Amino acid sequence: MVESFNSTAVKRGLAPGSLIHVGEVLDSVTRMSVIDYDKSNVEEVQIESLDEILQYKERDSVTWVIIEGLTNVEIVEKIGAIFAIHVLVLEDILNTHQRPKFEEYDDYLYVVLKSLVLQEGTFSVSYEQVSLLVLKNFVFLFKEKTDDLLDPILMRIRSSKGRMRSLGPDYLMYAILDSIVDQNFVLIDALDEAITSLEEELFDRPTPQTMHGIQRLKRELISIRRYVSPIRELMAELLRSESALIQASTAIYLRDVSDHVVRVIELLESYRDILSGLIEIYISGVSNKMNEVMKVLTLFASIFIPLTFLTGIYGMNFDYMPELKYRWSYPILWGAFISIPTVLLVYFKKKDWL
Amino acid sequence: MVESFNSTAVKRGLAPGSLIHVGEVLDSVTRMSVIDYDKSNVEEVQIESLDEILQYKERDSVTWVIIEGLTNVEIVEKIGAIFAIHVLVLEDILNTHQRPKFEEYDDYLYVVLKSLVLQEGTFSVSYEQVSLLVLKNFVFLFKEKTDDLLDPILMRIRSSKGRMRSLGPDYLMYAILDSIVDQNFVLIDALDEAITSLEEELFDRPTPQTMHGIQRLKRELISIRRYVSPIRELMAELLRSESALIQASTAIYLRDVSDHVVRVIELLESYRDILSGLIEIYISGVSNKMNEVMKVLTLFASIFIPLTFLTGIYGMNFDYMPELKYRWSYPILWGAFISIPTVLLVYFKKKDWL
Amino acid sequence: MVESFNSTAVKRGLAPGSLIHVGEVLDSVTRMSVIDYDKSNVEEVQIESLDEILQYKERDSVTWVIIEGLTNVEIVEKIGAIFAIHVLVLEDILNTHQRPKFEEYDDYLYVVLKSLVLQEGTFSVSYEQVSLLVLKNFVFLFKEKTDDLLDPILMRIRSSKGRMRSLGPDYLMYAILDSIVDQNFVLIDALDEAITSLEEELFDRPTPQTMHGIQRLKRELISIRRYVSPIRELMAELLRSESALIQASTAIYLRDVSDHVVRVIELLESYRDILSGLIEIYISGVSNKMNEVMKVLTLFASIFIPLTFLTGIYGMNFDYMPELKYRWSYPILWGAFISIPTVLLVYFKKKDWL
Amino acid sequence: MVESFNSTAVKRGLAPGSLIHVGEVLDSVTRMSVIDYDKSNVEEVQIESLDEILQYKERDSVTWVIIEGLTNVEIVEKIGAIFAIHVLVLEDILNTHQRPKFEEYDDYLYVVLKSLVLQEGTFSVSYEQVSLLVLKNFVFLFKEKTDDLLDPILMRIRSSKGRMRSLGPDYLMYAILDSIVDQNFVLIDALDEAITSLEEELFDRPTPQTMHGIQRLKRELISIRRYVSPIRELMAELLRSESALIQASTAIYLRDVSDHVVRVIELLESYRDILSGLIEIYISGVSNKMNEVMKVLTLFASIFIPLTFLTGIYGMNFDYMPELKYRWSYPILWGAFISIPTVLLVYFKKKDWL
Amino acid sequence: MVESFNSTAVKRGLAPGSLIHVGEVLDSVTRMSVIDYDKSNVEEVQIESLDEILQYKERDSVTWVIIEGLTNVEIVEKIGAIFAIHVLVLEDILNTHQRPKFEEYDDYLYVVLKSLVLQEGTFSVSYEQVSLLVLKNFVFLFKEKTDDLLDPILMRIRSSKGRMRSLGPDYLMYAILDSIVDQNFVLIDALDEAITSLEEELFDRPTPQTMHGIQRLKRELISIRRYVSPIRELMAELLRSESALIQASTAIYLRDVSDHVVRVIELLESYRDILSGLIEIYISGVSNKMNEVMKVLTLFASIFIPLTFLTGIYGMNFDYMPELKYRWSYPILWGAFISIPTVLLVYFKKKDWL
Repeated sequence: MVESFNSTAVKRGLAPGSLIHVGEVLDSVTRMSVIDYDKSNVEEVQIESLDEILQYKERDSVTWVIIEGLTNVEIVEKIGAIFAIHVLVLEDILNTHQRPKFEEYDDYLYVVLKSLVLQEGTFSVSYEQVSLLVLKNFVFLFKEKTDDLLDPILMRIRSSKGRMRSLGPDYLMYAILDSIVDQNFVLIDALDEAITSLEEELFDRPTPQTMHGIQRLKRELISIRRYVSPIRELMAELLRSESALIQASTAIYLRDVSDHVVRVIELLESYRDILSGLIEIYISGVSNKMNEVMKVLTLFASIFIPLTFLTGIYGMNFDYMPELKYRWSYPILWGAFISIPTVLLVYFKKKDWL
Repeated sequence: MVESFNSTAVKRGLAPGSLIHVGEVLDSVTRMSVIDYDKSNVEEVQIESLDEILQYKERDSVTWVIIEGLTNVEIVEKIGAIFAIHVLVLEDILNTHQRPKFEEYDDYLYVVLKSLVLQEGTFSVSYEQVSLLVLKNFVFLFKEKTDDLLDPILMRIRSSKGRMRSLGPDYLMYAILDSIVDQNFVLIDALDEAITSLEEELFDRPTPQTMHGIQRLKRELISIRRYVSPIRELMAELLRSESALIQASTAIYLRDVSDHVVRVIELLESYRDILSGLIEIYISGVSNKMNEVMKVLTLFASIFIPLTFLTGIYGMNFDYMPELKYRWSYPILWGAFISIPTVLLVYFKKKDWL
Repeated sequence: MVESFNSTAVKRGLAPGSLIHVGEVLDSVTRMSVIDYDKSNVEEVQIESLDEILQYKERDSVTWVIIEGLTNVEIVEKIGAIFAIHVLVLEDILNTHQRPKFEEYDDYLYVVLKSLVLQEGTFSVSYEQVSLLVLKNFVFLFKEKTDDLLDPILMRIRSSKGRMRSLGPDYLMYAILDSIVDQNFVLIDALDEAITSLEEELFDRPTPQTMHGIQRLKRELISIRRYVSPIRELMAELLRSESALIQASTAIYLRDVSDHVVRVIELLESYRDILSGLIEIYISGVSNKMNEVMKVLTLFASIFIPLTFLTGIYGMNFDYMPELKYRWSYPILWGAFISIPTVLLVYFKKKDWL
Repeated sequence: MVESFNSTAVKRGLAPGSLIHVGEVLDSVTRMSVIDYDKSNVEEVQIESLDEILQYKERDSVTWVIIEGLTNVEIVEKIGAIFAIHVLVLEDILNTHQRPKFEEYDDYLYVVLKSLVLQEGTFSVSYEQVSLLVLKNFVFLFKEKTDDLLDPILMRIRSSKGRMRSLGPDYLMYAILDSIVDQNFVLIDALDEAITSLEEELFDRPTPQTMHGIQRLKRELISIRRYVSPIRELMAELLRSESALIQASTAIYLRDVSDHVVRVIELLESYRDILSGLIEIYISGVSNKMNEVMKVLTLFASIFIPLTFLTGIYGMNFDYMPELKYRWSYPILWGAFISIPTVLLVYFKKKDWL
Repeated sequence: MVESFNSTAVKRGLAPGSLIHVGEVLDSVTRMSVIDYDKSNVEEVQIESLDEILQYKERDSVTWVIIEGLTNVEIVEKIGAIFAIHVLVLEDILNTHQRPKFEEYDDYLYVVLKSLVLQEGTFSVSYEQVSLLVLKNFVFLFKEKTDDLLDPILMRIRSSKGRMRSLGPDYLMYAILDSIVDQNFVLIDALDEAITSLEEELFDRPTPQTMHGIQRLKRELISIRRYVSPIRELMAELLRSESALIQASTAIYLRDVSDHVVRVIELLESYRDILSGLIEIYISGVSNKMNEVMKVLTLFASIFIPLTFLTGIYGMNFDYMPELKYRWSYPILWGAFISIPTVLLVYFKKKDWL
C-alpha cells in the first residue's frame, strides 16, 4: 500500500486531540496566502503570521486562506483558537491518513478529501490530502504541499468575469471540490491508455512482466477506489445538509459534482472488470503457449522415435538376419522412413492435433 | 473503453458553466427542425435561426424542437437565455460524457441518456447522447448526429391516429424514452446471436481468437451496462417526480418504460453470467486439448523407447554375446517387438489412460 | 437464450398500445372457456364469442374466463373495451416477453408471470406466460397454449368441497399463483437429479461432454432464475397492496405463496453454488488426469533413456575399446540393466513422484 | 441435496390446506407428552388422546405439549380444531420442507425452524423440523422424531431452581429456540475439525479424495447455511413483534439468541471463505506436482538424449571414419560423457530449473 | 479457526444465565484495580475484595474498576448483585466468544469487543475480549489477562493535563474504545509488511511455501475481519443511542472512533483484494515455470532425436548400403549434424517458441 501507518502507531499512546502532524511529510516548509475578494475587489497577500488575517474578520468579503505544508502545527492550533474549531477537527487536518468525509458543525463545515494527481512516466498516482474549513466569510484550505492544483480557481477569482466573485464561501468550496473531482477524469484517461497498451502487449507477446503490469495496475486501482468511493457519500451528506452556510442556489452545483463522482466510480468499476478479463486472457495465453510447445515436442518425438526403432533393428548384430543380405532392404527401409512420417502427419492433421 | 476523456481534461481549468462542446464530434453541422402539433394540425419546418421558434411560444400546441449536432454552442446558449435554463444544464447538454440522469427544475425537466445503436458487421455498438428539455409547451431534443432514431415518432405525429397528437409534451417525452429503451432489445438480440455463434465455435474448434471474441463481447457488455443501468434509476426518479409537467395519466406509460429497462438490465446480467461460462469452457477445452496431445506423446514414447532399448542391446559389439550366434534369436526378438506394445496398449486402455 | 426478440424489434416502430401479438406462437388456435361458480352452482361452457360472457356481468357469482392461445388479438381488444382495461395492460397480455409483475388499477388487478414446465427427457424447461386480470366478479386468465396446468384447480371448483367455492376472485387468483409457484418444486426435484447424475459421471469418468452438461444446466438455471426471482417482488407488492379486491383473509394465503417463492429462490441459489463446485471438480479432475499421464511418460523415459545410452556406448565401433574383449562385460551390463531401473523406481517411489 | 421434493410434487394437485404429511418420514410412531408447570408444581404425563389436554385449558399454569412424529395427521387436525389454529399453519407443521419463519396471529405465535444435529463418524448433519405454537398458557412443540433435543430443558423445568418455572410460555419458547440455535456451535466445532484435518491432508499428500472431501464439506455448508440464515430474519421479526404473548422482559433473552444466530452465520461465512482457499491450495498443489514430475523428465531427457546421439555417431559403419582408428577416441568420449551432464546440471541449477 | 467451541458445547445443557466462564483461559489469576479520579484528585488501589469499592458509590468522582482475568466467577456475580446488572450481561462478560456489540439498559451501557494484538515474529494476532460496563459514576472493564493495553490511558489520567480528568465515564469509555480501535492500525502496518515481503518472494522465487504463506495470511485476515467489522455497527448504535449516560459533547469523539473503524475495515478489504491478486500471480507463476521447463525439454528432444535417427541409419548392417563406402559420407553427415540444429533453432526462435 502507498501509505505507512508507523506514525499512527507512534501516536497511539497520546490523548485524542493532541495536535501533532501524522503522515509522511511531503513539504517541510509552510506557506500561507490570503485571497480576499468580493464583487469589486481582489486582494492577494503572502502572510507570515496568522495575526495578519484578523483584519479580514470584520469585512463582508470572502477571505480564502491557503495553508500549504502541514508541519507547522502551531498555525493549525492558532486557527483553532481564533475561530473556535473543535480540537478533533484540528487533529484530522494534521493527520493525512483521513478517509474523505464531511462534518457539519454549528458555525463551520469541515470537508477532507484526497487530491489524486497522475505522476509522469508509467501509470502511478500521488495522493495529497486537502482539508477545507468553511466559515461564514472565511474558507481555510490546508494542503500537504505546494503545487498548481488551485491555479485555475485563483485565475477565475482574479478575472472579474464569471459567478465566482459575486458568490459566497460555499460556492468557493464547490469550485474547489469540483476541481479536485474532475482531476480524476485525467487519471481515468491515463488508466485507459495504460490498460490498452497492456492489452496489446498481451495479444502480441505476453510475458510475466505483463502479468506484473496488470497486477500493479490492479493495486493502483484498489487504492484509487479507496480514496474516491467515500466521496460519493461525502457529497450525499453535503447535499442533505441543512446548514445555513450552504445557500440553496449552490446545491445544484454540488449535485453536479456528485454526478461526476458517481461517474468516476462507475468507470473505475468498469476498469476493474476489464483488468480481471486481462488476467484471464493472460492465463489462457500461457496455456495456449504451452499447448503449442507440447505439440512441437509431440510431433518430433512421435515421428522420429518409431523410425529410430527401425534403424535399431537393422543395427543389431545377430548372425542370422536374412534381411541384411537382401539387395533391396535398404531402399525399402528408406521407403518406410518417408511413408511412416507422412502417414502420421496426415493422421495428426486430420485429428486436429497439430 | 469507447470514449476519450482528453477533452474533459482540457476543460478542467475552466469555470463551471463555461459553455464549450466536450466529447468526440460525431457530426460537425447543426440541423434544427421544429414540429408543432396539436389535435388538429401538424406543422414541420427546418429552421436556420432560433428566432423562428419565438412565434410558437404563444401557442397552446406542443412544439418539438430537434437539434442535431452539438458543435454550434451558440444555439444552446440562446435557448438557455430565452427559456431561462440553468447554465449547468446547458453545460451537460454540450458535454457528451454524461451519465444518464433526470433533473427536475421548477419550470422544466431535464433528461439525458444514451441511444445505443448496433453497428453493421460484427457485434459492436455506437453510443449517441440524447438530451431532452421538457417545458410547458415545448420539448427540446439535442442529439449528436442525424440518424433515423426519431422517424417512427415523427410518423406517428404526422398520422392523426393514436394518442400522440392529443396529449402533451410529457407524452412526447415518454414516446422518445420508450423508443430509445426499446432499441436495446435489438441489441440484445444481436448479442444473443453473437454469443451463440461463439459458443458453437468453442465446441467445434476453439482458438485463441475465440477467446479474444469472448473478451471483446465482455467489454462491450461492460460498456452497455454502464450506459443502461443508470436508466433504471432515472426512470424511478421520473416516476417519483411530482412535477406539474407530468400528468397522472402519463405515469402508467412511464412505468411501462421502467419495466422494459429492468428487463434489459436483467438480460444483460444473464449474458454476463453466460459469457463467464464460455470462458470456463474455453479454459477447460484448452486443458483437454493438451491432455490429448500428451496422451499421443506418451503412447509413442512408452511403446517405442523400450523397444529401441532392446535393439540397442543386440547392436552392441561385445565379443562374448551368445544370443548373437543363436539361430532363433532374431525371430524371438520380433515376437517381443510385437507382444510388448500389445501388452502396454491393453494395460493403458484398461487404466483408461489412452 | 430461449427467447428471440426479433418480434420486439419488428414492433419497435409502432405506437405504444398498438395491439399485436409479440413472441413465439405456441398455439395458433384460441380457445375460450367460462367457469361461473358460487357456493351452490358451477357452470362450465366453451364459448365462441365474447358476447356470451356479458350475461355474467350482472351476477354475483365468480366468473372465470380462460383464454388459451394469444394469436386472436381481437378477443383481448374486446375484453379491454368491455371492462375498460388500460391499453398498456392489453399490450402486455399479448407480448409474451414480460417480466413477472403485479400492477394495481382502480377497478382491477393485473398479474403476469411464467409457468415453468419440465420437458420430458433430459433436463429442459418450457416457459408459458400466464396473465391474470382480476375484477370485482371476474377473473380473466390468458395463457399461450392448451395444457393441464389448471386441471387441479378446475377439479377443486367442480367438487363442492373446500373453501374454493365460497370465496371470491382473489382466492381464485391465489389458487392459480400457488399452483404455478409449486410447479417449481417439481423442477427443482429434476434439477437435483440431473446434478446428482452429472456428479457421478464426474467422479467415474469425466469427459468434455460432462463439462457441456454442466454448462447447459448452468444456463438453464440462469434462465429459470430470471423468471422466478421477480415473483418474490411481485408477491411482496401484492401483499402490500391495499386494493379492495383483495380481502384480508386472503392475505395469509398469499403470504404462504410468498414463502414458497423465497424457498424456491434459495434452492436455486444453492444449486448455482453446487454447479460452480462441479466445474471446479471437473477442472481439477482434468489436471489430475494429465498428471497421471505425465507420470507414465516420465517413468518410461527416465528408465529406458539411460539404458539405451548404455547400449549405445557398446555399439560404437572404436578399434580400441577394451571392454568389448572382456569375457564378463555383457553379463555385467545386464546387471546394470536390472539394477538401474530398480534403483530409480525405489527413488521415485520414495519421492512420491509415481 | 438432502431433501426430496417428490412428495411436494405429489401434493401439487391438492387444495391448499388439505392436511397430509409431506416429507421423509423420520419416525412412524407418534408420541405425545404433556408437561404442566408453574412456580410450585410440575406434572409430566404421556398421553394417548388429545382429550386429556382439555383439562389444562382452565388452569393458569404453563402447559407444554410435545408431539414427536408427524405421521398421525389427525392429532394436528384436532389441535387446530380445539385451539382455532389457521389451516395453513397446520399444513406447515405437517410439511417438513419449511423455510424457518415466524408468523404472528391474534391468539397465537407460530415458529418453525430446523434442528441441526451432527451425525457420528465423518462430518454430516441431520435435519429435523421443529414447529412451535405458542398460546396464552400453552406451548405445542411438533418434531419429526424422538431424540434428546429437549432433555436439558425438561431437566431445568423439573428442578425448581432457575427462572424457568416462574415465567410464562414465551420464556419456554425462548429456551427452546436458544437450545436449538446453540446446537450449531457444536456443529461448527466439528466443521472446524473436519476442515483442519482436510488442510493437513492437503499439505501432506493431496489426492483427488481430498478434493472430494472439500466439495462434500462445501455442499454440507451450503445446506447448513440454507437452514440457518433465515433464522436471523425470524429472530428479527420475533423481536419486532408487539404481540401480547411476548413479555417485555423476555425480549432481552430473545436478543441474546439473535446475537448467537448472527455469530453462527458469520462463522459459516468464514468457513466458506476458508474452503475456497483450500480448493485454491489443492489446484496449485496439483500444478506443483506436475511441475516436479516434468522436471524429472526434462532432467533425464536433456542429459541422456545428447549422449545417446554421441554414441550413435560412433556406432555408424562408414568405411572412412578416422576417429575410430585413433587410440584415445574412446577415453576422450568418456570424458564427454562425464563433462556434458556436469555442465548441463550446473547450468540448469543456475537457471533454477531443477 | 482460532477459537474452540468445546466449552460452548459443554455449556449447552445449562439454563441461560448460569454463570460459568466459557472460553480458553488466558490468565488463571484475577487482579482487580480501582482508579478513582476527578478534576483534582486521583486515587489508585489494588483491591482484594469487591467490598472495597462500595465506598466509591457515594462519591461524585469517576470510579474505574479494572478486572483482569475472568476465572473468578464470583466477582462478576457480586458486581451483578451490587449494581443490578442483568444476568445475561454477566453471562456475556464471562463468555469470551462474544461478537462485538453494544447494549443499552436503563441504568448502564454494555459494550463488548475484541482487542487485537500483534504477536512478535511472523504475522499472527492474539485476541483478547474486553467488556465495558458504564454506569453513572462507574466504569467496569473486564479483560482476559494482564497486559499493557490500558497503560496510555492510565498515564493520561495520572497526569492532570488533558480533558480526561474533567470529563465523565462516557469519555473514559470513548478513550478505551479509541485505544482498542487504533491498535488495528499497527496490525495493518504489519499486514502490509507481511504482504510486501510475500510479494517479493513471489517475484523472486515462488515456492509452495509462499502459497502457504498467502493462505495463512488470508485466514488471519478472515479472522480479523470477523472481529473488526461488527464494531462498525456497534459504533453506529452507540451514536444513535439516546442514553442519558452519554453526553452530547462525547458524541463527536465517538464519531471519530467510528471513522477510524470504517477506515480499518476498508483497508482490510483492500488487502483482501490484494491477497487474491497474489494467488493469481502465484498460479500464473507456476504455469510460467512449467512452460520454461517444457521448452528446455522440447529444445533438447526436437534437436537430438532427429540427429540420433540419422546416426541410426548409418549404424545399420545391411550388406548393400552404398553411402557407407563413399569417401565423403561421414563429413557430409557432420554437415547435417551442424546445419539441422541451426535451422531448427532459427525456426523456433522465429516462431517465438523458445
